[in-house]
Amino acid sequence: MKLSRYFLPTLREDPADAQVLSHKLMLRSGMIHPTCHGIYSWLPLGLKVLAKLERIIADEQDKAGCHRILMPTIQPATLWRDSGRYDDYGKEMLRIKDRHGRDMLYSPTHEEVATDIMRQFLKSYKQMPLNVYQIGWKFRDEIRPRFGVMRGREFLMKDGYSFDVTKDAAVAAYKKVVISYLKTFERMGLKAIPIRADSGAIGGDLSHEFHVVADTGESEIFYDCEYDALSANTMSFDDIERIYSAADDKHDPANCQIPTEKLRTARGIEVGHVFYFGTKYSKAMGLSVVGRDGEAIFPEMGSYGIGVSRLVAAIIEANHDKNGIVWPASVAPFKFGIITASWQDPSIVDIAEDLYQKMITRNVEVVYDDREERAGVKFADMDLIGIPFQIVLGAKCNDGIFEWKDRRTGERMDLTLEALFNKVDENDDCKNFVKR
Amino acid sequence: MKLSRYFLPTLREDPADAQVLSHKLMLRSGMIHPTCHGIYSWLPLGLKVLAKLERIIADEQDKAGCHRILMPTIQPATLWRDSGRYDDYGKEMLRIKDRHGRDMLYSPTHEEVATDIMRQFLKSYKQMPLNVYQIGWKFRDEIRPRFGVMRGREFLMKDGYSFDVTKDAAVAAYKKVVISYLKTFERMGLKAIPIRADSGAIGGDLSHEFHVVADTGESEIFYDCEYDALSANTMSFDDIERIYSAADDKHDPANCQIPTEKLRTARGIEVGHVFYFGTKYSKAMGLSVVGRDGEAIFPEMGSYGIGVSRLVAAIIEANHDKNGIVWPASVAPFKFGIITASWQDPSIVDIAEDLYQKMITRNVEVVYDDREERAGVKFADMDLIGIPFQIVLGAKCNDGIFEWKDRRTGERMDLTLEALFNKVDENDDCKNFVKR
Repeated sequence: MKLSRYFLPTLREDPADAQVLSHKLMLRSGMIHPTCHGIYSWLPLGLKVLAKLERIIADEQDKAGCHRILMPTIQPATLWRDSGRYDDYGKEMLRIKDRHGRDMLYSPTHEEVATDIMRQFLKSYKQMPLNVYQIGWKFRDEIRPRFGVMRGREFLMKDGYSFDVTKDAAVAAYKKVVISYLKTFERMGLKAIPIRADSGAIGGDLSHEFHVVADTGESEIFYDCEYDALSANTMSFDDIERIYSAADDKHDPANCQIPTEKLRTARGIEVGHVFYFGTKYSKAMGLSVVGRDGEAIFPEMGSYGIGVSRLVAAIIEANHDKNGIVWPASVAPFKFGIITASWQDPSIVDIAEDLYQKMITRNVEVVYDDREERAGVKFADMDLIGIPFQIVLGAKCNDGIFEWKDRRTGERMDLTLEALFNKVDENDDCKNFVKR
Repeated sequence: MKLSRYFLPTLREDPADAQVLSHKLMLRSGMIHPTCHGIYSWLPLGLKVLAKLERIIADEQDKAGCHRILMPTIQPATLWRDSGRYDDYGKEMLRIKDRHGRDMLYSPTHEEVATDIMRQFLKSYKQMPLNVYQIGWKFRDEIRPRFGVMRGREFLMKDGYSFDVTKDAAVAAYKKVVISYLKTFERMGLKAIPIRADSGAIGGDLSHEFHVVADTGESEIFYDCEYDALSANTMSFDDIERIYSAADDKHDPANCQIPTEKLRTARGIEVGHVFYFGTKYSKAMGLSVVGRDGEAIFPEMGSYGIGVSRLVAAIIEANHDKNGIVWPASVAPFKFGIITASWQDPSIVDIAEDLYQKMITRNVEVVYDDREERAGVKFADMDLIGIPFQIVLGAKCNDGIFEWKDRRTGERMDLTLEALFNKVDENDDCKNFVKR
């Protein structure tokens, strides 16, 4: 993409009405536009990041054997009356009457619709285990929406629902999702700490929250430093049960078993929540199937959520510096940026254009700042929008030397064209996605 | 994907409540589930097709220089009061009050929100031409939703909005979108006829509809057979103005200039609609920018829509036979299918597994029917769900011979493994998508 043709309305100044850093940076880097209180439009740069998150989440869900579906946003109240939640759910539920006067709602969560789908299709124990997920928009009518997309009203969620024959199988499904979530967050360059939680309105007896560690996090969390050393790729659910973690409401300093030198205190942003709740919905909604011996059984269920639009903000809270956003490469809107030290030097501009075309031909994600602006403006914008790998073309490019800058470390090096393309290939991640 | 593990709830019988063929086939092939009247959940197979359409549409929009954004579904009534449409829009608009009693709505279209975004960001004539689009869910509270996703209440649309300095530039933008739409439909294997239309509620003085030709189409259309010979890749807007086409409300047999032998009569399904409406919204909503000579100008606008979820049904109406759906390869949920003549023959099953793994490694979209079912059931299901290229493994596969079946033509041929992979590569279309 050439920046001169892109719709990237960056702002020079901090917007007055943004309180938290991620909100400020998302507005300043032209990622979002407030359509009304707690409801945002996603501009090209923001939508690209959202799509990156979706893709990683979907890939990990698919790997874990979950099936992607998409449920509607508008639903009939009847389903929520079946589950018994219609009257209990408070004012956060956006209630609607359609033209025929029927009670409808904009779904804040999809346990009812998922269970209803399975009422039609699940007939036998043989069809389980079954785990379906979607990535879709939800609405919660927060009384005080704030912090940009961190606590918006219309938000993008990944939510999943598992159906199993026995409690053991359901708990196994739950554990599988927990590990897959940790892999998902790790792949986004995040450290996420799983914390045992209450089930709240969803119900049930097993639940974990996932907190991304960021200095500006909303809640205080405590965990054993062993988490810092572990990778999601080698971790088991037993590790999670063994290694200490707690939010401030559960952490009791007087009785904590962890020696002080191993205890980490950090701020956390909740980005995921998982529940095992047994037969609560299958029983209430009459979802039963034929069991192994011909008996009727109610599937054991769990539900699993990741706040996708909120994650964009959480990633920024965990990855920024004084110059702007520092995207982890896997979620960057563009992995590579090209900047010319001068747009008035035709030989440099020719080389930049040629380099840009070569990268496009290689099908890598590159943004080329071809605007007629001072180099200082370009460097600042490229840092503000957080492009991980920046290629700077100064006078030396006439001799075939390109400057490579790593946004995170600030490290710079001079590279030949061949070495440059090796770096590009090394940092391209297409290979991480396969069709299933 | 292995079918034994897939969530593909096909039905043997025609569902009683479906009146049109695409609706029946979408239910029978497990693509959708009705959540309530006119509101559907998309199951894995259906969602895959929807994603294919999205990808083709986005690719053609990006090629045409449009910028992808995403606007919210829930919007404040204030924006529609600004444009003057809030009271005019009838009962098809889903009107909502939020918890604070504010008037909101579920957007049936996004002219207001798009114009509002530009009120913040468009400051100068230099920022135009600008064309933004989204692919997102909309709601129209149809009094009688019917024909499945063909006329649903919650539906997926691609909608785009162009902003230009002059009327000439706006008309040029309009023409560019028309050609890009024809390319989009052609890439989906569809013949779409552009027909001059009235502007209706959107307003303005230039408008075209796009009708997909299908025997079961909702309206009668008339067009010069020259359209049958033209490709969107070489067509110009002048061709469209020159070549006759009309829907039945405008076609006047007595005064039609086309000789009878050149006139084609067909049934059409409307899948797209484009409008140029000038300064209607920019003036009403106070979107003005600084012009070349420092004067205030109101951008000239157009809007452009494709019914994405409706297209899934339209493609089926135009591509089916007595055995089921016949997907054009570019939009098929899986391009390739593997069927074993017997699941009880271990040598065939081993070869099938090996072939499947090889295809997965090549990153092609393949579904392998590994269920413990009779071959007849597998052949029927593979045809029902419309897989374009089917690879059948019978006894001959022990000698390295695979049967290749073309779903559309019914043509079968025996291939060696090497020839088979040549066919696979030839029919894979990853190369058609590049990053921009």
